[in-house]
Amino acid sequence: MTSAAPSLDVTEDRKAQAKAWFEKLRDDICAAFERLEDDFQGVEGQTLHELPPGRFERTPWSRSKEGETADPDGPNLKGGGVMSVMRGRVFEKVGVNVSAVYGTFSKEFSKQIPGAAEDPTFWASGISLVAHMQSPKVPAVHMNTRHIVTTKAWFGGGADLTPMKPNEADTKAFHARFKEACDAHGADYYERFKKWCDEYFFLPHRGEPRGVGGIFYDYLDQDWEADFAFTQDVGRAFLDVYPRLVAEHMHEPWTAEDREHQMVRRGRYVEFNLLHDRGTKFGLMTGGNTEAILMSMPPMAKWP
Amino acid sequence: MTSAAPSLDVTEDRKAQAKAWFEKLRDDICAAFERLEDDFQGVEGQTLHELPPGRFERTPWSRSKEGETADPDGPNLKGGGVMSVMRGRVFEKVGVNVSAVYGTFSKEFSKQIPGAAEDPTFWASGISLVAHMQSPKVPAVHMNTRHIVTTKAWFGGGADLTPMKPNEADTKAFHARFKEACDAHGADYYERFKKWCDEYFFLPHRGEPRGVGGIFYDYLDQDWEADFAFTQDVGRAFLDVYPRLVAEHMHEPWTAEDREHQMVRRGRYVEFNLLHDRGTKFGLMTGGNTEAILMSMPPMAKWP
Repeated sequence: MTSAAPSLDVTEDRKAQAKAWFEKLRDDICAAFERLEDDFQGVEGQTLHELPPGRFERTPWSRSKEGETADPDGPNLKGGGVMSVMRGRVFEKVGVNVSAVYGTFSKEFSKQIPGAAEDPTFWASGISLVAHMQSPKVPAVHMNTRHIVTTKAWFGGGADLTPMKPNEADTKAFHARFKEACDAHGADYYERFKKWCDEYFFLPHRGEPRGVGGIFYDYLDQDWEADFAFTQDVGRAFLDVYPRLVAEHMHEPWTAEDREHQMVRRGRYVEFNLLHDRGTKFGLMTGGNTEAILMSMPPMAKWP
Repeated sequence: MTSAAPSLDVTEDRKAQAKAWFEKLRDDICAAFERLEDDFQGVEGQTLHELPPGRFERTPWSRSKEGETADPDGPNLKGGGVMSVMRGRVFEKVGVNVSAVYGTFSKEFSKQIPGAAEDPTFWASGISLVAHMQSPKVPAVHMNTRHIVTTKAWFGGGADLTPMKPNEADTKAFHARFKEACDAHGADYYERFKKWCDEYFFLPHRGEPRGVGGIFYDYLDQDWEADFAFTQDVGRAFLDVYPRLVAEHMHEPWTAEDREHQMVRRGRYVEFNLLHDRGTKFGLMTGGNTEAILMSMPPMAKWP
């Protein structure tokens, strides 16, 4: 930590601000995605236009007693969240989760978390989104930002794009928009966070990246106001760039072969999320909501 | 270990015997599965009979230089194996791997392996099989037996059944056949190894078992000859019971709903293998062949 611990009032106020932002961002993203469902005109050779425009369904969840485990060294989680899921004609399956949870990490897990080794108490809130698209011409995407409080407090998150086939223009547009968000907050942010993303979203057992990257940051605790402002701008960058990419490609025709390739790429996405993803592990290790955590799984995947 | 370490000659001869057995078992299983493909008469309402009877394709792989990592604490693996895969009209995707590998465990991983903490050198051979079936009326299955040599030496393995919907008769037949194999070798084997299987093939994040169990054993080092004989009988039990269950159900009709349910069950199979399975982790951690290890993935799975 670069600054002294804030007073309890301030900490509580900050938690509330962060949580409110994640919820507002969720609302804005869901609205933008539903507009894309409305704007969809169909794809030549496909029957998707026969489906009604998709709408998000929200399912709140909460943990009280059942979050407590009998094991005193095990995780103990309270709080809750809201899962928003849409199965549409553009978005085959998209999940947007917001949650605010608190409790104690398991003894084992707390050793891995900054500020939790001595005191395993934590509070965490965030937004997490994964979109798997009907069209193999539209890239899949992931975005997540979060605020975590132990005896320390920090922001983390990022976004990364997974095109089914290489598309230089999409990759450039995605990176450019996050560079803009980064550059407004720290001269070295883009370079550092892009590199972190490339290193993180990599499947060592395949020797291949998950997608074309984006940005990834964690343990950001320079200055709370500035870090929060940056985290908000990351959300805004996502909200600006991804719907543009979807709109640009959603009416392009594709072949059965393209769709098969998409299913195989999704298999790699599953491998990454279950073998390597820290967010998935964090959620499952802290006794989080399995349905919400595994909402990132694609609707269908193949290992032919 | 219950007995003194054998001489080098004896150890080498035992490795060769174990490897030869795993290869013979592979040949017998592949032949039995191909006979089922030949015997298939079709299913009412499905077009599977239009496909030709499936045949296994064998792909040998080996590691020499490329198994060595630059990291002196990293894994170092040599040797190789043969992947046998069939995509048929009864077996939608079945993989049978045999391998014999040797080298050194990574520093980190060696701490978890009996007899490897001081000396990370190992030799391992085994057979591993996962079958995902066209029909949701035919259970999926997994079987694996192996012989591992560090400064210690032991056998391990087992088999477990994953019906798509509960079927009491199948479950009974499967358990009865492995009980027979166990009872011939140790009075407490069946009870212990069945329990171990139930505990092992469990998805804690879902609070549900992967299937209906079977047997699972590891670190068996009572007496080499007896342990090897038991391991052979486990293979024979599998070869006897599973083809019978396939033959019994492969001509039964099913609905689109049954098939959807099968896809969701397969998603759970993926979750277990990537989140929890020790064999998958062992393979990926020792620098094994990713294609061979992930042959256990189903041809298609859904998370609707």
